[in-house]
Amino acid sequence: MTLGIDGDLEHGGTEVVEAASVEKTFEGQDVPPWQGQVTVRAMVVSLVLSVLFTFIVMKLNLTTGIIPSLNISAGLLGFFFVKTWTKLLAKSGLLMQPFTRQENTVIQTCVVAASGIAFSGGFGSYMFGMSSDIAKQSPEASSAKDVKDPGLGWMIGFLFVVSFLGLFSVVPLRKIMIVDFKLTYPSGTATAHLINSFHTTEGAKLAKKQVRALGKFFSFSFFWGFFQWFFTAGDGCGFASFPTFGLKAYQSQFFFDFSATYVGVGMICPYIINISLLVGGVLSWAVMWPLIANKKGDWFPADLKSSSLHGLQGYKVSIAIAMILGDGLYNFVKVLGRTLFGLYKEFCKKKRDTISDLDSDIPPSVTYDEKRRTEMFQRDRIPSWFSITGYVTIAVISIVTVPQIFHQLKWYYIVVIYIIAPALAFCNAYGCGLTDWSLASTYGKLAIFTIGAWAGASQGGVLAGLAACGVMMNIVSTAADLMQDFKTGYMTLASPRSMFVSQVLGTSMGCVISPCVFWLFYKAFGNLGVPGSAYPAPYALVYRNMSILGVDGFSALPRYCLTLCCVFFFGAIGINLIGDVVGEKCAKFIPVPMAMAIPFYIGSYFAIDMCVGSLILFIWQTVDKANADAFGPAVASGLICGDGIWTLPSSFLALAGVKPPICMKFLSRRENAEVDAFLGS
Amino acid sequence: MTLGIDGDLEHGGTEVVEAASVEKTFEGQDVPPWQGQVTVRAMVVSLVLSVLFTFIVMKLNLTTGIIPSLNISAGLLGFFFVKTWTKLLAKSGLLMQPFTRQENTVIQTCVVAASGIAFSGGFGSYMFGMSSDIAKQSPEASSAKDVKDPGLGWMIGFLFVVSFLGLFSVVPLRKIMIVDFKLTYPSGTATAHLINSFHTTEGAKLAKKQVRALGKFFSFSFFWGFFQWFFTAGDGCGFASFPTFGLKAYQSQFFFDFSATYVGVGMICPYIINISLLVGGVLSWAVMWPLIANKKGDWFPADLKSSSLHGLQGYKVSIAIAMILGDGLYNFVKVLGRTLFGLYKEFCKKKRDTISDLDSDIPPSVTYDEKRRTEMFQRDRIPSWFSITGYVTIAVISIVTVPQIFHQLKWYYIVVIYIIAPALAFCNAYGCGLTDWSLASTYGKLAIFTIGAWAGASQGGVLAGLAACGVMMNIVSTAADLMQDFKTGYMTLASPRSMFVSQVLGTSMGCVISPCVFWLFYKAFGNLGVPGSAYPAPYALVYRNMSILGVDGFSALPRYCLTLCCVFFFGAIGINLIGDVVGEKCAKFIPVPMAMAIPFYIGSYFAIDMCVGSLILFIWQTVDKANADAFGPAVASGLICGDGIWTLPSSFLALAGVKPPICMKFLSRRENAEVDAFLGS
Repeated sequence: MTLGIDGDLEHGGTEVVEAASVEKTFEGQDVPPWQGQVTVRAMVVSLVLSVLFTFIVMKLNLTTGIIPSLNISAGLLGFFFVKTWTKLLAKSGLLMQPFTRQENTVIQTCVVAASGIAFSGGFGSYMFGMSSDIAKQSPEASSAKDVKDPGLGWMIGFLFVVSFLGLFSVVPLRKIMIVDFKLTYPSGTATAHLINSFHTTEGAKLAKKQVRALGKFFSFSFFWGFFQWFFTAGDGCGFASFPTFGLKAYQSQFFFDFSATYVGVGMICPYIINISLLVGGVLSWAVMWPLIANKKGDWFPADLKSSSLHGLQGYKVSIAIAMILGDGLYNFVKVLGRTLFGLYKEFCKKKRDTISDLDSDIPPSVTYDEKRRTEMFQRDRIPSWFSITGYVTIAVISIVTVPQIFHQLKWYYIVVIYIIAPALAFCNAYGCGLTDWSLASTYGKLAIFTIGAWAGASQGGVLAGLAACGVMMNIVSTAADLMQDFKTGYMTLASPRSMFVSQVLGTSMGCVISPCVFWLFYKAFGNLGVPGSAYPAPYALVYRNMSILGVDGFSALPRYCLTLCCVFFFGAIGINLIGDVVGEKCAKFIPVPMAMAIPFYIGSYFAIDMCVGSLILFIWQTVDKANADAFGPAVASGLICGDGIWTLPSSFLALAGVKPPICMKFLSRRENAEVDAFLGS
Repeated sequence: MTLGIDGDLEHGGTEVVEAASVEKTFEGQDVPPWQGQVTVRAMVVSLVLSVLFTFIVMKLNLTTGIIPSLNISAGLLGFFFVKTWTKLLAKSGLLMQPFTRQENTVIQTCVVAASGIAFSGGFGSYMFGMSSDIAKQSPEASSAKDVKDPGLGWMIGFLFVVSFLGLFSVVPLRKIMIVDFKLTYPSGTATAHLINSFHTTEGAKLAKKQVRALGKFFSFSFFWGFFQWFFTAGDGCGFASFPTFGLKAYQSQFFFDFSATYVGVGMICPYIINISLLVGGVLSWAVMWPLIANKKGDWFPADLKSSSLHGLQGYKVSIAIAMILGDGLYNFVKVLGRTLFGLYKEFCKKKRDTISDLDSDIPPSVTYDEKRRTEMFQRDRIPSWFSITGYVTIAVISIVTVPQIFHQLKWYYIVVIYIIAPALAFCNAYGCGLTDWSLASTYGKLAIFTIGAWAGASQGGVLAGLAACGVMMNIVSTAADLMQDFKTGYMTLASPRSMFVSQVLGTSMGCVISPCVFWLFYKAFGNLGVPGSAYPAPYALVYRNMSILGVDGFSALPRYCLTLCCVFFFGAIGINLIGDVVGEKCAKFIPVPMAMAIPFYIGSYFAIDMCVGSLILFIWQTVDKANADAFGPAVASGLICGDGIWTLPSSFLALAGVKPPICMKFLSRRENAEVDAFLGS
């Protein structure tokens, strides 16, 4: 789950080498005041793109939980929309204000803030993990106090009271992180470079070509999704159930399911992630599960339903959790260590600086770019009292209202969370600035275990844990996201105030859009969260089980399961250790345990899609590296967006009761003969 | 059927503009003696390619009967094979003789001669039309004397005694046609240009790239065929039954069947052919057949089997025949007229020439190229007594043996055919030289009607007609083919003797390979000729019905069928007339009746494939005209060859009893629910 929107998948973003002096190029252009950066047109475009990206993120949430970085697409599409708009207006003579890169940054920020909620809202994890649909699949019979079914009202309310805290908690820290510590924030930097390049003549030309490529693959992917729809008249019908490597392999979840989304995701993700997924899939579905299945009747009762967590399914879920936790713990310790070490160094440096350089805020050794950027960044200050007042006010509201929503989450739990949270938010934002790796879900898991254990099973600890996870994740996730955006703003001379306003607006949009989109999925596709269906929402069960584990302990697991979990927990730590020891050159051939764990539970069909994407990109890069690098991300975004947006009409069709007319069915020869005889009679 | 291997589909060949003087480029290169042109390596390569192309032609024969020109592929692949061979030998120091363009021409000639037999042997038309499989579908109960089932022995024997006559009949005419009349022979000229270009350094480089493109799409198409195979465990299974446009459209034969062959064929055929096919398909299956089907019980009895020719099927077949005959007649008259007019002009010119220019065989106004080519062409003469003796000898053998094979075909019918044949062969070769349009099948139909009527129904006229068609078609078809090759040889300085030897060897190969390949298909796929199966062999029934019609008259047809036939017969003539009247610019938008008639009988799925091919080519040409023109034919050949050669392993699999494991089935939603309930119980 850390592989989420703010996870290491962002490493796949285009990395642009900075030119000698970017700001010199833009010297002639005026930077509008902050009110002129947050324009109405920017907000309209943001709204449209937010809906688009929320659909995509929601679909990914509910299918596999792997979400690539959409920053680049957001920047690109934002540029395209506003540019078209201003061009049209310019032609008709109505253009009042030219399109600036600051405006572009504002759009990007708003869209990222809004679609970020679709991830941190936990619709594929903690929030949906509370529902009775998921509770049914859990090992223990759940009492009413452990279940809370999704509801549009309480979800929107909950998100509104918890999502803004992260924002206020990082605002006072932005100068320290960006100007003083000069943290890299790789994704934010890449996005800034992209936006800067768009607003040069050369860049705009390339951007136009990229948009055309994106548009082409968008349409292809959309119509491919549309075409596929016609053949899905029942369960196991259509291209998504295509036994590409034979029926045997299909039963073990090895098949190419023709999903344009995951081919696109595979093109954006680094090769090693895709390979890790495949390795994990082979290890689990081709080796471990068949071996464990042979122990049926010995290790676990033979008469269980296949979905029972006391049987094979229990091994799948708990081994995956163990591996994710092992990887998470290792990276938590590592990033925390680097954070503390970094802070210590900064502290020493600061001490030296204050002694040697008392006369100026800006050290004299900075470049022209840095000087200008710092100047602009510090012009529109947001006073500290404002953010502190904001944080306290929202915290109080939140402490009062959240226990109304979740009776199991007592108000004093929330007070504790809100006291600790700013520190953790700072840690996460700092770590993310160093490594581009947001550990939001790890902090969330921490909350599950601590608050869950504190509340205890009898007090509805399962639900309390999940709700606490939500509160915590929202704070630390937005903190890292928004600091990335501040970095982008810093590099494009966007005012911190306009960024803040855009983030507030984006977050508000997200708080409404995400629950609505989830609601649409929930109502349109009846079987959300059912394993084997189109939307298995794998992490919902994983999160719920973590919560149960935190409250109840390990007694519910089948035989030897705990031993295996320990092996994989330490295995994950070991693999990470090896990766860090062998040096960077070899480390890129070491699989990522977090990625390996995902197919353990849901199978490797999407890993095959992603490897196909990797393969396409690899061949393309071999044949024509320049074009592949320039257009690869655009093509991938097109594939992801087209298929993602097709879910919008498809869910409307489902709501309207329009069913696909044809079933493309795959039968063995024997079955086919029987069916032919049956249909003939 | 005139749309066959020597039909107007050859117009699609690459047309290369001749350089200022080609022969000057080749001045330094020695032309080897004719024995050095027909090398062992050339014959080995020819044999391999002949088998390949025979498979392809046979598959096309048995599926739709549309066969594109394979001359270009033969030239290209021949070049590639021998070039690789000589390069390897040159590296090992064993190369005795460099690869010359004459040798290349010899290979091309041999392959065309061999694979031509696969078409003129009538395995998809007259020969298979004699079988009991086809007779079963005919309107009248057939007595034993009207049926002759395929047999490997008699087919090889028959082909050997009739296929060489065409060769001997044109040999004496080659100087008149090529040197004196200077006929264009577009396909032969295009092939010669291609071969010439390969043997320059530039051309060899392009050829290498083309071969690489061909190879890539060959592999793709082969593996696509292989992949499709796995999903065809029963009737109506697999991609070939994919209801791309819905189940309703599928029932009316409108669907894209994912056949790489026909996408490739569509890329080679001119746009108007593909559009004509589609127009014909829409006209018949979307308009006429549903209308006629509504008259069930009125125009024809309602209780007939769907395959009965007294019902709807009768309309389909006879209207298609009427249209083909109308188009054939029009073109026959047109080409004959042009032939006679051309001969008259030549005759007048000759008279003037003999008066004005008595001193030299070669007129003084010729270019260097012409001079050198004519010189080489006349160096190795084939004496006229040789060809006349050859013709008479083979005719005598044929007159003795053919009645042994077909008792219904009396020896005096054959004598008559053999007296008339050389004149018709000359007409066909001359017309083909002018228009690139071989009317072999039209002459064959002529034989069906005349000999059939002469023999009469009681004397087994049906079979006599079909056999006579075979005798006639083989002569006129090879005459046109081989004159094309002589033109290629003339332009590449290949000796007429080496060409003749190559043709004899190629024809002999064809006489053995074609029946064997047909036999493989016949034994491997049990249901050859059954409508709706993978190999419906549509023309087999069409030919048989023509023969029945010729013998019995029109009494067997259902109500109003004759009226409709007349409408379409004259409609075809009318469309042709309009095409000739409106001028060349508009004529390319007038559909070709012959092409329109084909989907009448077999449906338009292959027309959709071909239109997809057209669309691909069109888009490619729009985006990048130079590359599309250079690599389009290579890509198309790759698609055709790969899928074609896959039939070889697939038929071996079928013979070995290995059946595909999976059925990809398409069910309506209702059916699917029933099947799921059935399988569940």
